[in-house]
Amino acid sequence: MASMAAVLNKTPFLSQPLTKPPTSDLPIATAVSFPSKPRRRGVVRAGLISPDGGKLVELIVDEPRRREKKHEATELPRVELTAIDMQWMHVLSEGWASPLGGFMRESEFLQTLHFNSLRLDDGSVVNMSVPIVLAIDDEQKASIGESKRVALVGSDGSPVAILTDIEIYKHPKEERIARTWGTTAPGLPYVEEAITNAGNWLIGGDLEVLEPVKYNDGLDRFRLSPAELRKELERRGADAVFAFQLRNPVHNGHALLMTDTRRRLLEMGYKNPILLLHPLGGYTKADDVPLSWRMKQHEKVLEDGVLDPETTVVSIFPSPMHYAGPTEVQWHAKARINAGANFYIVGRDPAGMGHPVEKRDLYDADHGKKVLSMAPGLERLNILPFKVAAYDKTQGKMAFFDPSRPQDFLFISGTKMRTLAKNKENPPDGFMCPGGWQVLVDYYDSLTPAGNGRLPEVIPA
Amino acid sequence: MASMAAVLNKTPFLSQPLTKPPTSDLPIATAVSFPSKPRRRGVVRAGLISPDGGKLVELIVDEPRRREKKHEATELPRVELTAIDMQWMHVLSEGWASPLGGFMRESEFLQTLHFNSLRLDDGSVVNMSVPIVLAIDDEQKASIGESKRVALVGSDGSPVAILTDIEIYKHPKEERIARTWGTTAPGLPYVEEAITNAGNWLIGGDLEVLEPVKYNDGLDRFRLSPAELRKELERRGADAVFAFQLRNPVHNGHALLMTDTRRRLLEMGYKNPILLLHPLGGYTKADDVPLSWRMKQHEKVLEDGVLDPETTVVSIFPSPMHYAGPTEVQWHAKARINAGANFYIVGRDPAGMGHPVEKRDLYDADHGKKVLSMAPGLERLNILPFKVAAYDKTQGKMAFFDPSRPQDFLFISGTKMRTLAKNKENPPDGFMCPGGWQVLVDYYDSLTPAGNGRLPEVIPA
Repeated sequence: MASMAAVLNKTPFLSQPLTKPPTSDLPIATAVSFPSKPRRRGVVRAGLISPDGGKLVELIVDEPRRREKKHEATELPRVELTAIDMQWMHVLSEGWASPLGGFMRESEFLQTLHFNSLRLDDGSVVNMSVPIVLAIDDEQKASIGESKRVALVGSDGSPVAILTDIEIYKHPKEERIARTWGTTAPGLPYVEEAITNAGNWLIGGDLEVLEPVKYNDGLDRFRLSPAELRKELERRGADAVFAFQLRNPVHNGHALLMTDTRRRLLEMGYKNPILLLHPLGGYTKADDVPLSWRMKQHEKVLEDGVLDPETTVVSIFPSPMHYAGPTEVQWHAKARINAGANFYIVGRDPAGMGHPVEKRDLYDADHGKKVLSMAPGLERLNILPFKVAAYDKTQGKMAFFDPSRPQDFLFISGTKMRTLAKNKENPPDGFMCPGGWQVLVDYYDSLTPAGNGRLPEVIPA
Repeated sequence: MASMAAVLNKTPFLSQPLTKPPTSDLPIATAVSFPSKPRRRGVVRAGLISPDGGKLVELIVDEPRRREKKHEATELPRVELTAIDMQWMHVLSEGWASPLGGFMRESEFLQTLHFNSLRLDDGSVVNMSVPIVLAIDDEQKASIGESKRVALVGSDGSPVAILTDIEIYKHPKEERIARTWGTTAPGLPYVEEAITNAGNWLIGGDLEVLEPVKYNDGLDRFRLSPAELRKELERRGADAVFAFQLRNPVHNGHALLMTDTRRRLLEMGYKNPILLLHPLGGYTKADDVPLSWRMKQHEKVLEDGVLDPETTVVSIFPSPMHYAGPTEVQWHAKARINAGANFYIVGRDPAGMGHPVEKRDLYDADHGKKVLSMAPGLERLNILPFKVAAYDKTQGKMAFFDPSRPQDFLFISGTKMRTLAKNKENPPDGFMCPGGWQVLVDYYDSLTPAGNGRLPEVIPA
């Protein structure tokens, strides 16, 4: 497994600037280019791609002021956070949503809903496609009264943050859902989990988080913040960082794609492209494989040598999952800019799912990459569309699909994969490394009707 | 009535540039300013605000090439237009949607749905919030086959336009509705009229319209194109143009607002602010007052001296109405930039309506002006929020609402106004000029169960 010490050495280095090169040598979507070679601007002190808004936002109170802030928090009106609220607080606290400085006020919420982006004071635009909001009910609103600050508290009642200069505004649930998901059909997992029964008001403000967020689930060592990731990427001397968002087990088709991407980046002239393998760690729907099992599986994939630990950083992205397709993929990409990635791999139907009531996919499988390629505020990011990999029966391994001989390829869907693992059957040799497959089989074996360890609870330190 | 000769003299003039001045003296929404004085940049050859994309798009085939184009059209696969399609063709043909050059291709459609704006080749952004698309069904798609061009034909089968370099893509109706209206509730007028039963495909391409669009309903003289409006505004020597979109009869509260706006613009240093009184002329819902009656009413208002014909241009905006609130108001504003307006008056709940199934307004009454003030591509436009006018019982006339004495004011809603007119009752003296009121009474008197003259059909010349 790639090294992920909590404190990492910062090793600045010189190389090409990581801006978007101008030309293309791959057949990909409008306005997107897989550059043929990196742009060079003479001797430039390089670094990772800069965070949105120019500066990484970090909202955790400095050690020396924590005692004082905790005391202040005890004297404020209280808003209790759900597990998902806590995940968003985690996301905000580390600057994944930079330059957002707290739960959204109405002007940010409206810009997100209508424009998927925020205009900053200097007139520049950053992407922001998913509302990061905190709902409260009538009773909570009444208890806040005229206060301009509130304490955010965990399920045990202890304060975890202070929200300052607050703004309370209506929570237009139907409109939020329609504009974020492009449907209001019943059965959207995040909606049922976090919106339907949420309060009728939203509260925004500037966030100060009292302690770094920890889950104490054995996986905190994988939860590197954008600042920590940037240090690690710099320590490794990365001159290109390509991010791969996933919420499923890694099979050899994924591995092929990641290895091939690195090869192409090397061909383009980059000296040390680093893969950020970045599984989503927040809320996922009930039939997704839980984070702890996915992390075990990813670990096996690295142990088995399918991916090279020297050029791979595995870390957890703390965001909850919306399953909002083209809207959400922008968030997934934008957050990785803040962590230092300047290349983003996008697959078929990213963040998509089946329509909750109709017999079809909710989103057109190509819309995600198209929308991503045109999204305001993501112009600096190089979008790398996923090449389709499938099981090549003639080679007995995963390979890029060759449309001239379709009969030789076997497509193994997520559903098919899950069914095989549930039934303790094996996929074709070469579909997934045996160690990784065994983790999946063990997971389905472990399932019992009661509780499956999903939605890890944040435990305030 | 203000002069609106079909051919107008172009009289260039010198004045201040009509860019957005920097400061504010009115309490209005974020990022919006009612400037205290116009910005001066020394001697600048002024003109009206430039159209979106820098150049006004006009898609009507030049006279000398019409015969040839009409002949070409007869040899192409045919797509029959509905009355609303024809209205959009009219909108496109005159450049209200500049720089859009035809019905949207998928990249434009997706940018509109997700970002309410289009990124141009030079990286600049123009606003575009409402999809301008043409739906076709499976049968029409099959009949087009591999052709790269189609003829658009009227209900009588005669060609009205050619669509070139076409792209056919899926019509994701549910997603289009959800992202445009923020709801998918049944009963949205435009959706029921133009989307629910429309085809499952959209066809985009470059539009060439064979003749200027005429309706032959006695109102064509009011249908000035953006180019014609610009000529008229220049002829009058306008140094500020403030647009007032409406789809209802004008009462004295509106008139007060318009007169007051002109007064303030004069105070700011503009020498000749011109009002563009710009009723919407396309599709409206069944309980709105039809265009012909509204135009009669507007004419009376000018005749009765409530508005000054010397400083007012009355013209028809040919767009159909979506009733899509904050999304649509951006379209209403953007189109007026193309006609030369640099100030836009926005009211409470613009383009709003009651929720089709719930007992509430569909949109928050303040979202329209907030969204408009933050919309990408509308930074050049000065947004003027509507001050609330109501009937002041102490003065016996419409006046700006004074919150210190609410008991003195009477709010007369659209519903109340319609009820009074239907019952041939009079509103309080000073609510509307008597001639204008009589038009309304006559309209409701004229209503018979069969046919009410709505949706004027385009008659190809």
